[in-house]
Amino acid sequence: MKRRLVKVAIWGFGAMGSGMAKMILKKEGFDIVGVSDLYDGYVGKSIFEILSLENPFEHDVLIEKNIERILKEEKPDVVLLATDSFTRKAYEKIKFIIENKCNVISTAEEMAYPYAKEPDLSKEMNRLAKENGVTILGTGVNPGMMMDLLAVCISGVMENVEDMKISRVNSLSPFGPTVMEEQGVGLSLKEFNDKLKNDEISGHVGFIESTYMIAKALGLEVTDFEQSMSPIVTNVDRKSPYGFAKAGDVAGVDMRSFAKLSNNTKIDMVHPQQIEPEMEGTHTGDYIKIKGTPEINLSNVPEVEGGIGTIAICVNMIPHVINSKPGLKTMIDLPVPRAIMGDVRNLIDEE
Amino acid sequence: MKRRLVKVAIWGFGAMGSGMAKMILKKEGFDIVGVSDLYDGYVGKSIFEILSLENPFEHDVLIEKNIERILKEEKPDVVLLATDSFTRKAYEKIKFIIENKCNVISTAEEMAYPYAKEPDLSKEMNRLAKENGVTILGTGVNPGMMMDLLAVCISGVMENVEDMKISRVNSLSPFGPTVMEEQGVGLSLKEFNDKLKNDEISGHVGFIESTYMIAKALGLEVTDFEQSMSPIVTNVDRKSPYGFAKAGDVAGVDMRSFAKLSNNTKIDMVHPQQIEPEMEGTHTGDYIKIKGTPEINLSNVPEVEGGIGTIAICVNMIPHVINSKPGLKTMIDLPVPRAIMGDVRNLIDEE
Repeated sequence: MKRRLVKVAIWGFGAMGSGMAKMILKKEGFDIVGVSDLYDGYVGKSIFEILSLENPFEHDVLIEKNIERILKEEKPDVVLLATDSFTRKAYEKIKFIIENKCNVISTAEEMAYPYAKEPDLSKEMNRLAKENGVTILGTGVNPGMMMDLLAVCISGVMENVEDMKISRVNSLSPFGPTVMEEQGVGLSLKEFNDKLKNDEISGHVGFIESTYMIAKALGLEVTDFEQSMSPIVTNVDRKSPYGFAKAGDVAGVDMRSFAKLSNNTKIDMVHPQQIEPEMEGTHTGDYIKIKGTPEINLSNVPEVEGGIGTIAICVNMIPHVINSKPGLKTMIDLPVPRAIMGDVRNLIDEE
Repeated sequence: MKRRLVKVAIWGFGAMGSGMAKMILKKEGFDIVGVSDLYDGYVGKSIFEILSLENPFEHDVLIEKNIERILKEEKPDVVLLATDSFTRKAYEKIKFIIENKCNVISTAEEMAYPYAKEPDLSKEMNRLAKENGVTILGTGVNPGMMMDLLAVCISGVMENVEDMKISRVNSLSPFGPTVMEEQGVGLSLKEFNDKLKNDEISGHVGFIESTYMIAKALGLEVTDFEQSMSPIVTNVDRKSPYGFAKAGDVAGVDMRSFAKLSNNTKIDMVHPQQIEPEMEGTHTGDYIKIKGTPEINLSNVPEVEGGIGTIAICVNMIPHVINSKPGLKTMIDLPVPRAIMGDVRNLIDEE
């Protein structure tokens, strides 16, 4: 006898949420039982119309403004929550999902290791999840894999870990207008610095989460953490589908962080994000260098692209989240991630 | 209140077992409660004398010929079993350990995914482990990480996995006389081919285990598997601490495997093992290339050395094995591996 389909709901139908829907539609054993989004142009429309894809199900999926009916009537196994970057902003939504006895996977960067910035909310989420018998996970390509979990995983073959230097050199070219604005692409240096002062450049959210996740995995504490953000000024005109920076202006942000752990281990992170890095000879890639025994010199060139990677890991973690003991989990608590290539139903534990 | 020390016993005090003891002695929160080895020159001797290391415990650790007293009287939390390469050979020892209610971590290459070659024994081990409330894990640097788990882990950011090509170019130079003999180092081509015909060249044990582990993780079946072994003939005289191959003779073995999965995905593995590869311009490294969305092009250069890596991962998996639900587990069932850098007691679940 075949198991029933794995019921997924998606909250937030932007680039991430709609990308997850598209990925799920290519996989076996899933059912999308509901999608919620606030955008008036979407509400009431079929996701298949919006995605220009054929409907493989026996039911339509119309976008609803409110998630409540979906949670209460469709009883999804898991909700993919793709709406926020910050734990505090996602919190009420997560609470509502778990109080309706659904597991949740959040794309919010801070949720990849919420204990770093929101220890009290994290404890509360953990308590609520256990009380309701469900699991909460935050994940993404970064934080979630390229600058943290991958380093944790490879450290498994090390007798001794000394300093880590983790770099992710990526391109912002595939991203849309929101990202261009958040990262200051196309601004003059003066405009960038003014916005920076007013906290209007978001840069990368995740260094502190990645650092705390690694420290926790190694069994250490973070004793010092600081990060910096500076403009990447281009020497040539650079143009991407949604961005333009003329020579002398800002093509992106260079983010760095420096942390010290309780045994004096240092974790440094470097993450320059810009449009068209190749135009000035910068090649994208993910790099993990770990001093210790043995030395690690891991690289993935070119980078794993942010959008695809986040979409994939959120969907791929669904079976692990369903199978997990209840509570607020992070990537270091669950089994190693993996691509779902067969019928997802076979990956769900019987118990 | 601090937890009690994590009690470890080691069965087999060769290069792996003694290396694990040395690593454990550098970590906090462990106690080595017993070591067993058959070698008469060791029996009755203190491991601290053999290792020329100071004894940090309040008791000595004398090597015993028989593990029985250690299991029954010392009641270790886990036994590190470093005696065999093959499941069938390790089986009776594993059975004896688990019937004494101890968890076990085996270095036997086949135990990294015993379902590949010994499905019946695996089911029996799983049954016995559950019956006795303990966990069995096989691991090592390869199989166990570099040609399997690392590929599984990075596939977590992939929407779609097509073909995989996994290579490990390593050096046999750090290894001793046994490895030189098993790998045919120093033989003439004729001698090598004669031994190959008589199954006297062991080569790398692990391709089938790595392939089945990856397939299982992706939710697919292996439909075809074959492997080959051929001599690496050197053009120059090569000398390592325990090996010598003169020009025209064999410096190692080139192993390859080819597998097809149920959805036609191919997994190819390449693993040339030789002494002094740099003498002919070969540089060591671990490489994982995965076609799909997105493409993966992961490398770690130079290789993670086999001995250290296996020692480290066996010790580092101790908390995961103690925390696991009972049964025969593999690396894809347990949380992501990681280096133990803090007090191991903090990594043991309270429950």
